[in-house]
Amino acid sequence: MSPVEQLAEEQSAFIAGVSGELTSFLSAQQDLMAPISPDVAPLLDSISNLVSGGKRMRALMCYWGWRGAGGAAGDDEILTAGCALELFQAAALIHDDIIDRSDTRRGGPSVHKRFSQLHSDNGWALDAERFGQAAAILTGDLCLSFSEEAFTRVGLRAAAGTEARRIFNLMRAEVMAGQYLDILEEVAGPVRDRSGSVERAKAIIRYKSAKYSTEHPLALGGALAGASKELLAGYSDFSLPLGEAFQMRDDVLGVFGDPETTGKPAGDDLREGKRTVLVGFAINMASADDAAYVDQVLGKPDLDQAEVDRIRHIVVECGALEATESLIAELSNTAFAALEQLPLAELPLTALRRLAEAAVSRAA
Amino acid sequence: MSPVEQLAEEQSAFIAGVSGELTSFLSAQQDLMAPISPDVAPLLDSISNLVSGGKRMRALMCYWGWRGAGGAAGDDEILTAGCALELFQAAALIHDDIIDRSDTRRGGPSVHKRFSQLHSDNGWALDAERFGQAAAILTGDLCLSFSEEAFTRVGLRAAAGTEARRIFNLMRAEVMAGQYLDILEEVAGPVRDRSGSVERAKAIIRYKSAKYSTEHPLALGGALAGASKELLAGYSDFSLPLGEAFQMRDDVLGVFGDPETTGKPAGDDLREGKRTVLVGFAINMASADDAAYVDQVLGKPDLDQAEVDRIRHIVVECGALEATESLIAELSNTAFAALEQLPLAELPLTALRRLAEAAVSRAA
Repeated sequence: MSPVEQLAEEQSAFIAGVSGELTSFLSAQQDLMAPISPDVAPLLDSISNLVSGGKRMRALMCYWGWRGAGGAAGDDEILTAGCALELFQAAALIHDDIIDRSDTRRGGPSVHKRFSQLHSDNGWALDAERFGQAAAILTGDLCLSFSEEAFTRVGLRAAAGTEARRIFNLMRAEVMAGQYLDILEEVAGPVRDRSGSVERAKAIIRYKSAKYSTEHPLALGGALAGASKELLAGYSDFSLPLGEAFQMRDDVLGVFGDPETTGKPAGDDLREGKRTVLVGFAINMASADDAAYVDQVLGKPDLDQAEVDRIRHIVVECGALEATESLIAELSNTAFAALEQLPLAELPLTALRRLAEAAVSRAA
Repeated sequence: MSPVEQLAEEQSAFIAGVSGELTSFLSAQQDLMAPISPDVAPLLDSISNLVSGGKRMRALMCYWGWRGAGGAAGDDEILTAGCALELFQAAALIHDDIIDRSDTRRGGPSVHKRFSQLHSDNGWALDAERFGQAAAILTGDLCLSFSEEAFTRVGLRAAAGTEARRIFNLMRAEVMAGQYLDILEEVAGPVRDRSGSVERAKAIIRYKSAKYSTEHPLALGGALAGASKELLAGYSDFSLPLGEAFQMRDDVLGVFGDPETTGKPAGDDLREGKRTVLVGFAINMASADDAAYVDQVLGKPDLDQAEVDRIRHIVVECGALEATESLIAELSNTAFAALEQLPLAELPLTALRRLAEAAVSRAA
C-alpha cells in the first residue's frame, strides 16, 4: 500500500468509526428517552440528522494531533473524543443558527426551522417560529450535554485535572465568548470607531473559530496521547494561523460563495450583519459614501439580490477582497511553514498538510 | 447544642460553602476569560448575579442525600457537587426565561433582559431584544459548560461509569425532555384531546421538575456517598411525589401568587400559556363556555388583569383549585409517609422533613 493509500484508508476508518460511535451513542440515548414520551423523538432525530453530515474537520484535527503525538491508530479513546467534538459542534451549530436566524444548515433546514415546520404541519396553536426557537434551544442544550457525556467516557485521560480536560473546558468557554464578541460587534460595531474594526474582527475569529476549530481540537488529540509542552506549542504555531485563514475563507464564501456549493443562501452573512475582517477592510478602504452604505444595510434581514450585488461590488472595488485574500495567504504561509517544523512522522504530517490545504482553499 | 441548632448550623455551613465555591469557581473563570476581551465580562457577571440568589434546594437535597447515605459533613466532594447543581439550575433558568419570555427572575431582570438593557443603554444598532436573546443563549451555554466542569471536579466518585455520573447525565436529559414536553403542550394541548390534559400535565411536571428538582439531586448525593440500591429506591419513593407536589404548588403560585412574594408578575404562567395540572383540571371541570375561554386566552402575551381575574375565578369556581390542592395534599402525604420509612439517622431525616415541608407549603 502506498503512503497515500495508507493515509486515505486510516482516515476513512476513523471517520467511519466516529460515525458509528455517534450512531450507537444516540441510539442508546433514544432508548433512555423513549419511556418519557414518544413526543420527545424529534429532539434526538434533529441531533442524529445534524451529526450525520459535516466534514468532521474538528474530529480529524483531534485524530491527527493524537497520531502525531504517538497515539495508536483506531484507538477507542480517540474515537470517543472525536464523537464528543462532533456533538459539541452540532450543539454550537443549533444555537448559532437560532442566533443568526439561519434557516438552512448542511443543505437542509436548520433545527429551529425543522421544529417550526413540525408546528405548522400539525396545525398547532400559538406561534410556529417561537416554538421552533424554543425547541431548538432545548435540543442544543441536550446536544451540549451529550458532548460532555461522550467526552467523560474517554475516561482517565480526560479526567479532572488532565491537560485534555483543561483544553476541552477552555475550548467551550472561548468559543462561547467568541460568539458573544461576534454578536456584540454586529450591534456595537456601527457605533464604535471604524479604524478598530479589522482588529476587532480578528479577535472574534481567533476565539469563535480558530481556537475552536483547529487549535484546540489538534491540541486535545495531542494531550490525550501525552504530547509534550513543546509539541503542543508547535501544534499551536501551525493551527492558530490556519484556523484564522480558515475562518476568513469562510467569511469570503459567506459573501461571494455559490449557494449551490455552500448550502446557504447568497449573502446570508450580510443579512445576519456579520462584521468580518472582509467587512472591516471594506468600511475602512471604501469611499465615505460606500462605507456608509455598507454600514447601513448590513444586518438588514430582507437584503435583496441588488443590495448583495452592490456590497460585493464595493468589497471588490475598494480592495477589501484583495486585502483579505492577502491576509489569508499570509496566514496560510505561516501555518504551512510551522507545520514543516513539527517533529512528526510522515503519515500525520501529510494528513495535517492535506487538512490544512482543504481548510484554506475550499469552496464550501 | 440541640439537634435543631446542630441541623441549622450544618446546613448554613454547607450553603455558605457552596456559595464560596461558586464565587471562587466563577472568579477563576473570570481570570481565564479576561484576556479575551473586557467586552465578555457581562457574560460572567450575569451568571454570578444569578447564582448569588435562590434557595439552593437542589444542592440541599443532594447534601442530605449524601449525609443520609453516610457521607461526612462538609466534605469537599459534596460541596463541589452542590456547586455543579446550582450552576446547572442557573443555566436552565437562563434558557427557560428566554423560552418563556420572562423578563424577571429572582426579583431582578432575567439575563436576556439584562443584555437588552445593556444594548439600549449603549445606544447600539439593530434590535435590542434580539441581541438580548442571543447573548442569553450563549450565557446559558457557558453556564451549562461550567456546571459540567464543576461536576467533573468531584473526581473519581463522579467519573465515567459511576452511578453518580449516570444520574447526572439522566437528570440533564430528562429535564430538557420535560421542558420540551412543556412547550409542546402549550402549542399542541389546545388541539389534543381535552380529557388527557391532566395526565399530560402530570408527565410534564414529573420530568421537567420532580425528577430534576428533588429525585435526582437526592439520589446524586446518595450515590456519591455509595448508597445501596435499596436506599436509592427509598429516596425515590419520597422525593418523586414530593417534587410533583412542589411543582403543583409552584403552578398554583403562578396563577394565584402574590407578585411581591414570588418576584414574578401576577398571572405570568397564564401569559406564557403553561398547561399545568391546575389548568388541565379547569378545562375539564369548567362549563363548556368557561373552558373555551381559558383555552382561548391562555398564552396571550398581553393578558390583562381583568382576564387574569376571570381565569382565577373560573379555576376556583369549577373546583380545579380544590382538585389541585387535594392532589398536592395526597402527594405530600405519600412523600412524608415514605420519608418516615427511610433508614436514616435523626439529623438527615429531620433535615429532609423540613426541606419537604418548605417545598410544598411555600408562598414563593
